Amino acid sequence: MPYCISSEDVDEAYEHVNPCVTRTPVLTSTFFSTLSSRDVQFKCEAFQKTGPFKFRGATNATRMYIEGGGGTAVVTHSSGNHAQALALAGSMNDIPAHIIMPNNAPEAKRRAVEDTYKANVTICDPTKRQETADGVLASLDGAEFIHPSEDPRVIASQGTVSKEAAWGDNVKIVLAEPEIVDDAKRSFESGELQGHEGGVAKPSVADGLKTTLGLNTFAIVKDLCDDIMTVSEKEILRCTKLVWERMKVMIEPSAGVGVGVLISDEFKEKYPADKYKRVGVVLCGGNVDVGKTIVKMQEMGL
Amino acid sequence: MPYCISSEDVDEAYEHVNPCVTRTPVLTSTFFSTLSSRDVQFKCEAFQKTGPFKFRGATNATRMYIEGGGGTAVVTHSSGNHAQALALAGSMNDIPAHIIMPNNAPEAKRRAVEDTYKANVTICDPTKRQETADGVLASLDGAEFIHPSEDPRVIASQGTVSKEAAWGDNVKIVLAEPEIVDDAKRSFESGELQGHEGGVAKPSVADGLKTTLGLNTFAIVKDLCDDIMTVSEKEILRCTKLVWERMKVMIEPSAGVGVGVLISDEFKEKYPADKYKRVGVVLCGGNVDVGKTIVKMQEMGL
Repeated sequence: MPYCISSEDVDEAYEHVNPCVTRTPVLTSTFFSTLSSRDVQFKCEAFQKTGPFKFRGATNATRMYIEGGGGTAVVTHSSGNHAQALALAGSMNDIPAHIIMPNNAPEAKRRAVEDTYKANVTICDPTKRQETADGVLASLDGAEFIHPSEDPRVIASQGTVSKEAAWGDNVKIVLAEPEIVDDAKRSFESGELQGHEGGVAKPSVADGLKTTLGLNTFAIVKDLCDDIMTVSEKEILRCTKLVWERMKVMIEPSAGVGVGVLISDEFKEKYPADKYKRVGVVLCGGNVDVGKTIVKMQEMGL
Repeated sequence: MPYCISSEDVDEAYEHVNPCVTRTPVLTSTFFSTLSSRDVQFKCEAFQKTGPFKFRGATNATRMYIEGGGGTAVVTHSSGNHAQALALAGSMNDIPAHIIMPNNAPEAKRRAVEDTYKANVTICDPTKRQETADGVLASLDGAEFIHPSEDPRVIASQGTVSKEAAWGDNVKIVLAEPEIVDDAKRSFESGELQGHEGGVAKPSVADGLKTTLGLNTFAIVKDLCDDIMTVSEKEILRCTKLVWERMKVMIEPSAGVGVGVLISDEFKEKYPADKYKRVGVVLCGGNVDVGKTIVKMQEMGL
């Protein structure tokens, strides 16, 4: 098997996470169905515990660690959504979670991880995340590191979204990415894993999508996805606003990227409505600073 | 029967509207359940077609008009949610809708009614709504006036929310109202229908709740509700923000009022958590200008 997981791993993950995760609703929208001339279904992972789909992966990894006999702690470094997800997964499964956060992480996020989700937080220099995590791991005999996107237990469990949405087996998979952070598209088209242009992510409004693919995720994307399309910053914000106004779902801009693809000319041309009558879109997360995002929208004349 | 409707009318309304309305999800929230120490369920009518629950009433009234042999047009005067709801109900049932709107109604609302929902709009002086509506009615032989809140067909159908939520029969009914627009509370406590203090509604952020009760609705409220509690403007906005941030549902401030009651000391004292283990809250609508509401929140230090 050329991949780090099989479809059976997704099935198994679903058994692990089903009692813990929110079974998020699939909503339809007359506005978006009319706009794209087909039946559109939105899987609302913005309603998932801690905000995005990430809690699925963190929960499966934590439960598999416990099933394998682990009982000390789960450890990760993250300033964002995976930090909160692993903190809550630890708390719900009675396993201590240790989160290494850079000292430039927003205070609000640190407090959510520490106070709301009861994790142990270690603050470090932003350039010393991995070595700080290694130090914490070494000090906790039997503790386990859970990578936010490359851990196979995490990857398998993010796939449980599709089991709940039940969009069928014979589907095309189209990925959506910000135009200014297009490492996945460049990797997909060249067949070789690519990093950020210039080595660092440009400051996209879709801040949940600034991490690059890794070897485990790229192997799957390379073979099993049909297409990757990109969306401009302005269109990401415009689609985020459309979802707020038309669907009343408070998505973060990262979730607006898929909507941008849905209503793009490129998607309509490649996947014409008369042939592709149903489209499923994952609204992946809802952790958004509404005030700051509104200002960005206004600056762009939206 | 002392009321304009019976529970059978609600059942009948449900048969009428079931094929048309969105069966909105009931969501739970760990945050609000923890905060109120009980199982809280939110019926998300913010996801209803056109934004609030109002589409239920407009649809039932329109279908009953057609069933009764009507075919000319449905008519109302409204600058707000009922206008959009009746416009869409007319459009979906192939009956012309005529909406009388005051000339101070927001341009965006007028365009939604006219362009999105394809209704005929007549603009009038704000003081001449009823006589303009009467004129339109007189010019359309067989047309029917649908009052936004006093029409029995509308009242019966708003009750279909409770059929979907299935909160059981043996419940207490607690109404929620802005502190500065408390005509329902004053009416309930005095036993006599009261208008606005000073004759006009104060400018509450919960702009969907500024209409007073009428004779038909008050008769029901007076006998069948257990309590009416009020919420301050600041608390309405704080709760609206909490729902945005914690539940990712884009409610309008009118829907924050019920949440304000839920987490109030008054509610907790009168309905203690050990005796009242489950609470259902209707998040009644989602038509909100996010930018303007954020500014109001910031002005109040939220």
